[in-house]
Amino acid sequence: MERIGFIGLGAMGAPMALNVHQNGYELCVWNRTRTRAAPFREHGVEVADSPADLARHCDIVIIMVTGPGDLLEVLSGKDGVLDGLSKGMTVINMSTVSREATLEAARLVRDTGARFVDAPVSGTVKPAEKAQLVILAGGENDDIDAVESLLLTMGKQVVRCGDVGQGTRMKLVINLMLGGMMVLLAEGLAAGEAFQLETERILEALDNGALSAPLFKVKGGVIREGDFTKQFPVDLVFKDLNLALEAAGRQGQALHATAAVRELFAAARGAGLGDEDLAAVYKVVLNAKD
Amino acid sequence: MERIGFIGLGAMGAPMALNVHQNGYELCVWNRTRTRAAPFREHGVEVADSPADLARHCDIVIIMVTGPGDLLEVLSGKDGVLDGLSKGMTVINMSTVSREATLEAARLVRDTGARFVDAPVSGTVKPAEKAQLVILAGGENDDIDAVESLLLTMGKQVVRCGDVGQGTRMKLVINLMLGGMMVLLAEGLAAGEAFQLETERILEALDNGALSAPLFKVKGGVIREGDFTKQFPVDLVFKDLNLALEAAGRQGQALHATAAVRELFAAARGAGLGDEDLAAVYKVVLNAKD
Amino acid sequence: MERIGFIGLGAMGAPMALNVHQNGYELCVWNRTRTRAAPFREHGVEVADSPADLARHCDIVIIMVTGPGDLLEVLSGKDGVLDGLSKGMTVINMSTVSREATLEAARLVRDTGARFVDAPVSGTVKPAEKAQLVILAGGENDDIDAVESLLLTMGKQVVRCGDVGQGTRMKLVINLMLGGMMVLLAEGLAAGEAFQLETERILEALDNGALSAPLFKVKGGVIREGDFTKQFPVDLVFKDLNLALEAAGRQGQALHATAAVRELFAAARGAGLGDEDLAAVYKVVLNAKD
Amino acid sequence: MERIGFIGLGAMGAPMALNVHQNGYELCVWNRTRTRAAPFREHGVEVADSPADLARHCDIVIIMVTGPGDLLEVLSGKDGVLDGLSKGMTVINMSTVSREATLEAARLVRDTGARFVDAPVSGTVKPAEKAQLVILAGGENDDIDAVESLLLTMGKQVVRCGDVGQGTRMKLVINLMLGGMMVLLAEGLAAGEAFQLETERILEALDNGALSAPLFKVKGGVIREGDFTKQFPVDLVFKDLNLALEAAGRQGQALHATAAVRELFAAARGAGLGDEDLAAVYKVVLNAKD
Repeated sequence: MERIGFIGLGAMGAPMALNVHQNGYELCVWNRTRTRAAPFREHGVEVADSPADLARHCDIVIIMVTGPGDLLEVLSGKDGVLDGLSKGMTVINMSTVSREATLEAARLVRDTGARFVDAPVSGTVKPAEKAQLVILAGGENDDIDAVESLLLTMGKQVVRCGDVGQGTRMKLVINLMLGGMMVLLAEGLAAGEAFQLETERILEALDNGALSAPLFKVKGGVIREGDFTKQFPVDLVFKDLNLALEAAGRQGQALHATAAVRELFAAARGAGLGDEDLAAVYKVVLNAKD
Repeated sequence: MERIGFIGLGAMGAPMALNVHQNGYELCVWNRTRTRAAPFREHGVEVADSPADLARHCDIVIIMVTGPGDLLEVLSGKDGVLDGLSKGMTVINMSTVSREATLEAARLVRDTGARFVDAPVSGTVKPAEKAQLVILAGGENDDIDAVESLLLTMGKQVVRCGDVGQGTRMKLVINLMLGGMMVLLAEGLAAGEAFQLETERILEALDNGALSAPLFKVKGGVIREGDFTKQFPVDLVFKDLNLALEAAGRQGQALHATAAVRELFAAARGAGLGDEDLAAVYKVVLNAKD
Repeated sequence: MERIGFIGLGAMGAPMALNVHQNGYELCVWNRTRTRAAPFREHGVEVADSPADLARHCDIVIIMVTGPGDLLEVLSGKDGVLDGLSKGMTVINMSTVSREATLEAARLVRDTGARFVDAPVSGTVKPAEKAQLVILAGGENDDIDAVESLLLTMGKQVVRCGDVGQGTRMKLVINLMLGGMMVLLAEGLAAGEAFQLETERILEALDNGALSAPLFKVKGGVIREGDFTKQFPVDLVFKDLNLALEAAGRQGQALHATAAVRELFAAARGAGLGDEDLAAVYKVVLNAKD
Repeated sequence: MERIGFIGLGAMGAPMALNVHQNGYELCVWNRTRTRAAPFREHGVEVADSPADLARHCDIVIIMVTGPGDLLEVLSGKDGVLDGLSKGMTVINMSTVSREATLEAARLVRDTGARFVDAPVSGTVKPAEKAQLVILAGGENDDIDAVESLLLTMGKQVVRCGDVGQGTRMKLVINLMLGGMMVLLAEGLAAGEAFQLETERILEALDNGALSAPLFKVKGGVIREGDFTKQFPVDLVFKDLNLALEAAGRQGQALHATAAVRELFAAARGAGLGDEDLAAVYKVVLNAKD
């Protein structure tokens, strides 16, 4: 069985790495903040001294870090993954970064003779813990074949999106729809309030029909409870809507509803809700009536 | 057990009436076009000569006709239901009509001493056949209690929306979100096309995550197959979006995303798609690129 | 010279009637609230006892009242204009009413053998005083020809919009653009504020270029001074936007920007600004940042 | 009187330089494509060998080139302006570039001890020829004072927008409103068409009232004639709308109408109209009905 290196043990990365380990893979981990690796050592997982060191001892390197800067640093910084790569190995980037950063990372990795797979995920912490992520994979088909069973230790499904970079773009489409559905729920509940319908009853009516979606259940609960602690913050949704609209517009594709959705998330930022959960857009939708 | 009268044996009404019959209720039916009642007679169901005749022989009268004109005709026209009503009876209107028509119908019925329940449904022909409708009930709580088990022979759930007229308003909220989700799916697929992602893969990525909804599965299939035979036509979605936006705006509630959605359905009408299934809005969303 | 009857001496009607009088026409007036007619009597203008009485003594009857109800009352109520009309006379309705009310009024008037011209105006009190209104005329060309010089005592321009009812529709188009330009100014100033540009400087930059419009000067001043006493209230703009969008949508014409504009006026209503000047929509546009 | 150097003799730059010359300033010009300088030589204007050469012989250097790349090349490329600058001189950038490029240019110029003024213009070729441009100036007040009379040989008005970079931002606000007014005109005409009003009559009704703006006259004519040869192309409007919305959204300022406007220009690109005049957005607004 291949030896797996896992870089990035944050809120998402830690449970993902644990799932890899618990499925019997030999695991080696590295995290910039060393203390986050300690619990792994206690489970008998090896902790590498550097990304390069990790790469030298593994067949497959998974990277799950916060943004494009971290990804490129981990790859090409001092003692980076590139220093330890060789032909026949595979790097899987699961971090959410821009398409440009993904393509640059792929170029750097492939220049060493190693393979590259682009595999951002749809889902947050809870699905990560339960290995229920949806994995949006881009890359050569053979390269994805070779790591699919590994990916399925972390998620329930691998969607093949096309070449390297297409996983990232699929994530943009998913997040565009996520922001849109959040706003639709907010507008539905706000219309309901204007019509003197109870929120609870609207959620009940949505729950069993053609529109029923797990998001409505979860975010309906958030709105009902009024606890907007972030799962996925307004600021990140705004960022992704911006990227999606700009890219689509450049291709001449108008997205009228999504454009209205973007403005509502902009307004949520203006109302100081940027760091709250995306469900906080409900407060902005209701706003005029306060 | 109460005797049930059922008026209106159209595409929705016929399977609904059949479900009432098959659950052991003694049933009597009436339909303007007599031939549609024939199959019921063969099942041993009594066929009334007029709405008044039907009312005289029943405890509860269910009405499922096409619009406000038909509803008021069936009630107060010659040999109408009102002529056969008496204290202690209940009329349940399940037709989708405006709130004003609902309130007028309730007033007429209650003037005879009978009770009135407002119970439009969410769901189309297939859920009607399978008794899987979601029933949006408005009326006095006691009046709904008294007919709830009857309603559950036709649907899987009775949502209590408030007073008479609130069932109709709930349906407006559900249809507002239905139009919105249809457009979101269209914009997600259109963005995906601009990003060179396959429709099939986007539907797959949606299918298991927080955004997964039966509507996306069904309408994603419609778009993939390109067969826009109506289940629920563009014209009706436009009509309901119009009603919802006007009512919300009168209350001072802005619905920015829904307003963009309305315009796309207006454009679909302009493109000659008014009688196609609401999924045809996808063609308008893609339009600019053709 | 023809004898002119003028019905409705409100904020708009009074200066309009005065301009007719000062251009040498023999004038007779009537107003429901009699005291408003007194200043005219002092100028030597005859005051009629009723609309019927006025009609009997005139060749042309101008009506400038508040809404469709008043228009129809003045025409067909007790001692109404219809009672005094005869073949060869002309009725000019300059009140702003729905197209349906205009068509109904035209039918009533024409049934007496008299002619009907539809002539709502673009412009508020100040242009009315200075005879600078733009008059949006609908009717038979000959009928408009016959009253054009009379109309030009009240305005600077008569725009021929087509048949009876088309003047009303032209006014809807003008008000649609009025609401839109007000929102554009608000969004331009709000963007300017986000970019740390002074309102005064933006208005200066607008003032001499291709975008310069009297509206920007006037409403820019309103926003700078912060005095939102109504000239033309938010509620009326909302009403007209609603009518325009519904009529255009029914024809399959999407109006995406106007739809966003409508929602902002809906939000202004929700914020309790319905009775303030339309410039108050600026407060809603800025809203998120407060 | 100061000696003026003018770099960039394109469609805008040539008439602007000519106006400087004809107002009695001693002028020296440079243009990358030498042939464009020839007509100036015939008017007795000196033609420099390089930007550095030009700078060495002048007190004030005006730059009017196509984009940020050209601006930075002209300044810091081989034999660039920076090589000829010295304390006491002033560089005026009138090219339209991003705020970032403006700030970078200012830094480079100020490092040599010279002064920098940011002065993009509002207006196209015709106003440039007639010295009717509106000049949007950013910089130290003293620095603008010192060049104001020079700027007024090219335009009718200098708007002081704030520090260096604010001229650029003011231009973004103006272009945001330009795109918006273009779409409003398109939607007004499209609604008019749905209401069977003639385009000519709508333009007439707009022409004398509160909404009358030179843009409506010019672009109304373009639409009526159907000749969409670019004055200012769809692609550039889209680019500026994108920049404005992104910058405003980052500051938490929602611009709902402008967002809808942006999508219509995106759709115009998708319809292959990117290189046509911005008035071509009318075709997209009408689109659904074809």
